[in-house]
Amino acid sequence: MVLSETAERITSMEIRGAGRIARAAVEALKEYSEGLDSPDLTAYKKSMQEAADTLLATRPTAVSLPNAIHYTLASLKAADSLPAARAALRERADEFIRSSLHAIEWIAEIGARHISDGDVLLTHCNSQAALACIIEAHRQGKEIEVYATEVRPRGQGLLTLQALDQAGIRTNYIIDSAVRHFMNEIDLVIVGADAVTVNGAVVNKIGTAPIALAANEARTNVIVAAETYKFAPLTILGDLIEIEERSGSEVLSEEIAARFRHVTIRNPVFDVTPASYIDLIITEKGALPPGLAYVIIRDYLGWSIEEFSKPHGLDDRNTD
Amino acid sequence: MVLSETAERITSMEIRGAGRIARAAVEALKEYSEGLDSPDLTAYKKSMQEAADTLLATRPTAVSLPNAIHYTLASLKAADSLPAARAALRERADEFIRSSLHAIEWIAEIGARHISDGDVLLTHCNSQAALACIIEAHRQGKEIEVYATEVRPRGQGLLTLQALDQAGIRTNYIIDSAVRHFMNEIDLVIVGADAVTVNGAVVNKIGTAPIALAANEARTNVIVAAETYKFAPLTILGDLIEIEERSGSEVLSEEIAARFRHVTIRNPVFDVTPASYIDLIITEKGALPPGLAYVIIRDYLGWSIEEFSKPHGLDDRNTD
Amino acid sequence: MVLSETAERITSMEIRGAGRIARAAVEALKEYSEGLDSPDLTAYKKSMQEAADTLLATRPTAVSLPNAIHYTLASLKAADSLPAARAALRERADEFIRSSLHAIEWIAEIGARHISDGDVLLTHCNSQAALACIIEAHRQGKEIEVYATEVRPRGQGLLTLQALDQAGIRTNYIIDSAVRHFMNEIDLVIVGADAVTVNGAVVNKIGTAPIALAANEARTNVIVAAETYKFAPLTILGDLIEIEERSGSEVLSEEIAARFRHVTIRNPVFDVTPASYIDLIITEKGALPPGLAYVIIRDYLGWSIEEFSKPHGLDDRNTD
Amino acid sequence: MVLSETAERITSMEIRGAGRIARAAVEALKEYSEGLDSPDLTAYKKSMQEAADTLLATRPTAVSLPNAIHYTLASLKAADSLPAARAALRERADEFIRSSLHAIEWIAEIGARHISDGDVLLTHCNSQAALACIIEAHRQGKEIEVYATEVRPRGQGLLTLQALDQAGIRTNYIIDSAVRHFMNEIDLVIVGADAVTVNGAVVNKIGTAPIALAANEARTNVIVAAETYKFAPLTILGDLIEIEERSGSEVLSEEIAARFRHVTIRNPVFDVTPASYIDLIITEKGALPPGLAYVIIRDYLGWSIEEFSKPHGLDDRNTD
Amino acid sequence: MVLSETAERITSMEIRGAGRIARAAVEALKEYSEGLDSPDLTAYKKSMQEAADTLLATRPTAVSLPNAIHYTLASLKAADSLPAARAALRERADEFIRSSLHAIEWIAEIGARHISDGDVLLTHCNSQAALACIIEAHRQGKEIEVYATEVRPRGQGLLTLQALDQAGIRTNYIIDSAVRHFMNEIDLVIVGADAVTVNGAVVNKIGTAPIALAANEARTNVIVAAETYKFAPLTILGDLIEIEERSGSEVLSEEIAARFRHVTIRNPVFDVTPASYIDLIITEKGALPPGLAYVIIRDYLGWSIEEFSKPHGLDDRNTD
Amino acid sequence: MVLSETAERITSMEIRGAGRIARAAVEALKEYSEGLDSPDLTAYKKSMQEAADTLLATRPTAVSLPNAIHYTLASLKAADSLPAARAALRERADEFIRSSLHAIEWIAEIGARHISDGDVLLTHCNSQAALACIIEAHRQGKEIEVYATEVRPRGQGLLTLQALDQAGIRTNYIIDSAVRHFMNEIDLVIVGADAVTVNGAVVNKIGTAPIALAANEARTNVIVAAETYKFAPLTILGDLIEIEERSGSEVLSEEIAARFRHVTIRNPVFDVTPASYIDLIITEKGALPPGLAYVIIRDYLGWSIEEFSKPHGLDDRNTD
Repeated sequence: MVLSETAERITSMEIRGAGRIARAAVEALKEYSEGLDSPDLTAYKKSMQEAADTLLATRPTAVSLPNAIHYTLASLKAADSLPAARAALRERADEFIRSSLHAIEWIAEIGARHISDGDVLLTHCNSQAALACIIEAHRQGKEIEVYATEVRPRGQGLLTLQALDQAGIRTNYIIDSAVRHFMNEIDLVIVGADAVTVNGAVVNKIGTAPIALAANEARTNVIVAAETYKFAPLTILGDLIEIEERSGSEVLSEEIAARFRHVTIRNPVFDVTPASYIDLIITEKGALPPGLAYVIIRDYLGWSIEEFSKPHGLDDRNTD
Repeated sequence: MVLSETAERITSMEIRGAGRIARAAVEALKEYSEGLDSPDLTAYKKSMQEAADTLLATRPTAVSLPNAIHYTLASLKAADSLPAARAALRERADEFIRSSLHAIEWIAEIGARHISDGDVLLTHCNSQAALACIIEAHRQGKEIEVYATEVRPRGQGLLTLQALDQAGIRTNYIIDSAVRHFMNEIDLVIVGADAVTVNGAVVNKIGTAPIALAANEARTNVIVAAETYKFAPLTILGDLIEIEERSGSEVLSEEIAARFRHVTIRNPVFDVTPASYIDLIITEKGALPPGLAYVIIRDYLGWSIEEFSKPHGLDDRNTD
Repeated sequence: MVLSETAERITSMEIRGAGRIARAAVEALKEYSEGLDSPDLTAYKKSMQEAADTLLATRPTAVSLPNAIHYTLASLKAADSLPAARAALRERADEFIRSSLHAIEWIAEIGARHISDGDVLLTHCNSQAALACIIEAHRQGKEIEVYATEVRPRGQGLLTLQALDQAGIRTNYIIDSAVRHFMNEIDLVIVGADAVTVNGAVVNKIGTAPIALAANEARTNVIVAAETYKFAPLTILGDLIEIEERSGSEVLSEEIAARFRHVTIRNPVFDVTPASYIDLIITEKGALPPGLAYVIIRDYLGWSIEEFSKPHGLDDRNTD
Repeated sequence: MVLSETAERITSMEIRGAGRIARAAVEALKEYSEGLDSPDLTAYKKSMQEAADTLLATRPTAVSLPNAIHYTLASLKAADSLPAARAALRERADEFIRSSLHAIEWIAEIGARHISDGDVLLTHCNSQAALACIIEAHRQGKEIEVYATEVRPRGQGLLTLQALDQAGIRTNYIIDSAVRHFMNEIDLVIVGADAVTVNGAVVNKIGTAPIALAANEARTNVIVAAETYKFAPLTILGDLIEIEERSGSEVLSEEIAARFRHVTIRNPVFDVTPASYIDLIITEKGALPPGLAYVIIRDYLGWSIEEFSKPHGLDDRNTD
Repeated sequence: MVLSETAERITSMEIRGAGRIARAAVEALKEYSEGLDSPDLTAYKKSMQEAADTLLATRPTAVSLPNAIHYTLASLKAADSLPAARAALRERADEFIRSSLHAIEWIAEIGARHISDGDVLLTHCNSQAALACIIEAHRQGKEIEVYATEVRPRGQGLLTLQALDQAGIRTNYIIDSAVRHFMNEIDLVIVGADAVTVNGAVVNKIGTAPIALAANEARTNVIVAAETYKFAPLTILGDLIEIEERSGSEVLSEEIAARFRHVTIRNPVFDVTPASYIDLIITEKGALPPGLAYVIIRDYLGWSIEEFSKPHGLDDRNTD
Repeated sequence: MVLSETAERITSMEIRGAGRIARAAVEALKEYSEGLDSPDLTAYKKSMQEAADTLLATRPTAVSLPNAIHYTLASLKAADSLPAARAALRERADEFIRSSLHAIEWIAEIGARHISDGDVLLTHCNSQAALACIIEAHRQGKEIEVYATEVRPRGQGLLTLQALDQAGIRTNYIIDSAVRHFMNEIDLVIVGADAVTVNGAVVNKIGTAPIALAANEARTNVIVAAETYKFAPLTILGDLIEIEERSGSEVLSEEIAARFRHVTIRNPVFDVTPASYIDLIITEKGALPPGLAYVIIRDYLGWSIEEFSKPHGLDDRNTD
């Protein structure tokens, strides 16, 4: 598949999900690199950067995309010849894909250790990573019980129910606003993340922040399961994670909404949980406190602060 | 309508709602008193107590019912003759009904003073008393805006939308788990109550407590609009307000639920907001901090601690 | 001095200060009552009410004025003859004046008991009642040290310095924004009040609330010294205490302010300290937690909830 | 037994314990009243007051003593003849003794309602009232489990162990500093009180306040079981409850202590838990939030604020 | 200008301000290096160290001075010849100066992204970096409004007013103690820093900490704008930032102060805001949570822990 | 001493204490390396790894052991010949031992700077590192006073008393549950650590967490003195620090315990203090906030995340 095709499929959302987008882009870069017929290293690097720009333009707000592309292209820095560069890129790409594919598995192993026999857990929405931790703990023979939320308006809680039920885990299904009511029963909250900012705030499905607040009120630990490519590098430069608002029709049918003249439906998809309500973030690189998001971004995602700091860098920072 | 008929209609839930139940019972007592052909005061009191017992048995967990009946029968204490007793009861009954009918109106007048021009309010569920405050403030020409919640699983938020839209008040409709997300926009939270306990905890629609928690986190005031007959006298004797759990089918259709083997649906109807998250309770007797619930119960509902304190009192305390 | 003269002197602010206004009004009512030549009790009561209305109109936002007048006129309720009424009013008036004159003295005696040998105190603004507690403790031989604030913009801290220095009390003078910096040195915060609302919030000189907040952060007790007539009865009906804003020229000279085109000077005189930051309010009737403000208003100031609750009462509530 | 004998036995601590002291004093007053040969009511009252003064002087810091005596003598106020006075006092005395004897039983009934089937409780020290609640709940068939502390330095936890073990209640015995470690297992903390101050602070065995703090941190409810005569009336006048320090030899043997030159042993017996960490106080008059201690003092112990407020009242306030 | 001259001008405070001092010192080192006629690398390094010592001695408590000098001299470590060393130092010096000059500009770009259209901001004192963020956001067309404090005792708020007014930004001028009163109106607090310690505490103008405390109470974000050379490396070794106290005459004229015998004026210039009240620190190297101050010190200021860890290092640590 | 002998002495607890175990193991590795007669580098490395495994197996839960061994063996990575490897290991081993021996001394120097003249300190248990800070501050002439706890059940407070008394430091000895009672007297809490987890939680003697909680409630700083080898690397992989429970007979004699049928003695040795209650951890590498534990583990203990991340790494992670 040629690079432009991958770009199109990401744009059209045929390829979806933070992990899948990231791997498709890296795969496309690798193929593109292999097929490139560049006269010299400089030309090769220029072509690769253009390819990267094409891919970056497909989903400007995705967090995993620039992380994956940046990480892959960073392999070119040390290369002093075209073949070396190509080989380095290939290796990096393969490593990224392998690591990404195993990330959930690793997170599950680490996260499961935080779950003790007899624990009652609470999860929200339908995080693959969070569920993997729970299911792994169950697989290890720990007797656990889960509270899972409904997740209005799109009801992703049902997917969570299916996964837990299929795994044979005892699960209580509750409406979103009942989380504080049951919090005194809960030993551990475990959720996923859509993005993590440089100060450790976790952007996740709307409803996560009130859960973390109620957990904090009741001295219940909150852990977040998130692959490293969920960490948002540009928040170092002050970028705010935009909280998407979806159509009000998800909340109230258009037919009913049409009856009202003074009513606006507000439907934000995410909310922001401050780092102080989170005990640990479990990544495939290990568990860290949220306050170290910067270290993940710099040391594992490979963003160097110098890349951010070029004289004209702020505007074209995504392209390197 | 004879007393037994009223009792039946309360039992069958033909007569519903804290206020309506209370007034129907008092009306029934009054009629019964008028029709009683007692030989003397002692016999009259005995008959009235039996009538009260009949009514009390109709809905053992309602808070307004024992309040109304007790308040009415308390008129008999000072009476020294049968005609005086009957007259006193008549007067008390009329006063209770009048006061009850005007309670919302009074609460609205008091509550509206807490709403300032330009305020953004948040309300939850469909409290007649809370809405009355909001609509009264709007009627006075204050420019206000409201956030109203969806209220899963039964969606009472829609009734609130209707009331606010009809009043011409600008309203934002949000899912329950979005309350913390918008809390920094909110100037005042105003909700109703199903019951208030002796230590000022407010039992109200599930989802109220997380709102109050998030308001407290953001230094946003929370006021509760509640008629005095919502205050639960027996909590002085340690009675806990039972948190009713309704059928899980309200949350998830039985058809879908049947697919799962390890899933239980938990559907509590109320939650408990501690007094420390509530700034004021607005009653028809004025605004008081929640910590004074006891004063309402003793001084306005007329429960004397001595009534609770009879040697054998704990078991038959409802019957006086 | 005739009643109208007293009214004028209150209006013109010749008579100032919560205590002085209250006593002057009561004195005027007493004199007026003595001079009244009413045909019967009804006429007498009507005249007295008119006199009260005249006085109430002089300073509509003062808290001590309606308290004093209401307290005095409440003596008429039980009277069953004109002479009895006149005598009752005379007695009540004398009692009010005597109690008011002794209030600070009583508060000092009670408050001083909360100050231990070796204590380091912090006070703000220039509260006669708070200073009386401090000076009384010093007089009793307790070795104490005080931090006193500057109190921008009008610098009332200087008056406090004078009082403490004259009493021979070791005092540290600090700017208002240094209170948190020194809070770990402080054993007890003691301030006055301009008004206390029904939920125990204390309205006092701007800067009081941040002191109480910082004290709460450091587990330092805060006590408020306030005569009972500072408690605001109409807050039971939802009245908000208006936070007066004075001229910006107190903060910045008009000459300098004139240089700016986009600048507004905001100069609020008071702020509101929530009850949860206050341990005790010391009144001349004893020390109470702020949550019992309602009890002071009802049981010591003599406002009955029934007076608030007349069918048309909300609009003319001040006049009874 | 003549009054002076009772006084002696209280002084010599032959009669000990808040309840026993109180009942002995009241009994002595009753006997003394019966035996008094007064010429008239005035002389009788004077003699009774002298008797009261004798008893009050026996244990100046006990809280139950002035409460009991004051309560009993308050019966004399309304009496208009010597026989009426004597009868009134007799009745009051009997009532006090009966109520006191039943207080624990009543508290147990009320407190047990706050304990649910399956609850894990934590108690500290050896409070008869708190244990009565726990044992009553167990007697009702509720399956409960208790954590009981060691209570250094005197080890009263052992007495608690005995009582719970004998009742057949599953109990965990822990050192005092382990309370926070186990707090997430605890559903309810229930302790006694040595004294309750006017602002609802609870003076109890050292170690109670850190338990309440840890409970508050974990959203665990704390209830206090305390007879009304534990409420300290003079705190209304600013009296501080003195925190007794016992001999250091309770903590460290004198022999070992003697080895050190720079070491002081501090051995406070009580600490002070602020009202904000306590959900309810269970008394024999019902359950109230701690903020209503004043209401207990005034309305159930019968201390009127006027008694405190006599011109020369502060010094001789105990004697009426 | 020779090095000794620069040293003198820093000592005499002719050269002032954290940035200017730092750049002057680095410029002086560069010139000195260029003019040095050393026989070999060792001698050159020794001379440069002596020059550094001379400069360090000029303002022993400044934070930016050791940072700048250390950073510049760190260039010598890798050099293996005298010319290489000189060239490395030259390059480092130029880079430091350029980066320092652009630091505010960069901070402004990053900080402005945290300011949204419609935001109401609060700033304190007169931080060039904080103002740059605000003015940049305004320049980008965001409609904003600012609350600026008076800043007793020296009134630096006036300089802030001038800067904001000149930029055409709507500004409210308030006294320092009014910050909590207006906090519910504020969307974002943005202040500067005089120093940042290793645990992320921010030392800034007195009054900053109560603002951050009140912001935290109201869930309002606080960001700090600070160039990296404000981070204090020696706090890693336990050094406390000394809180300077200036003359009391800044607070109260000596003439007035002379009237008092028992009064001390305390005039601390800075206070310390704990990291937990700060959401982000904006540096020219990006935005980081305060908990990562150590990373700034080590990785961007170039202090290696080994430098701190020489056997005799604690005493002469500034000189390497 | 041959390696197996050292291993035996660690197993048998003849060699005890985190520091001593670590140094003995490193010394054993060094000796073993010197005596090894390997044919080539590969064989040498294999033998050294086997030796390491032998040592690691002696105390599987000790934190300092894997840290010391891993740190020492990490020297082999860069070596490209057998002699180079042996030399590198020798150097590393010597450095580790030297650094370990000086660690307390360094910590004392750094920690003492956080203690100011006049400070009142609180310490718990018998931490050599914490005591060293206190004694060093005293040695520097700072006038300090200490509160030291009894530390039930084993009474290590007595050892602390001895150390402080011998140093001539004024000390107050208190029971564990009195810490909150005295907290308002305390300027600084300083304790040791048994382990520090990746999110900065401190595992230390039971009773530490309630002290930190009470310190946090009173805005009192808490610092922890801990050598870097107390930081637990495997917590990055989700390992939980096991909280050992010792025999109940430490708490209650078996003779007494035997009297009870329903009593279990719970005797946990440690508790967990969350990072948010700790201001700084003082290590021999400098002072850092607890949130940077990860940096200590990675950058000073030398654990690279890659070592954790081998495909099969989770199970044999200790062996590299």
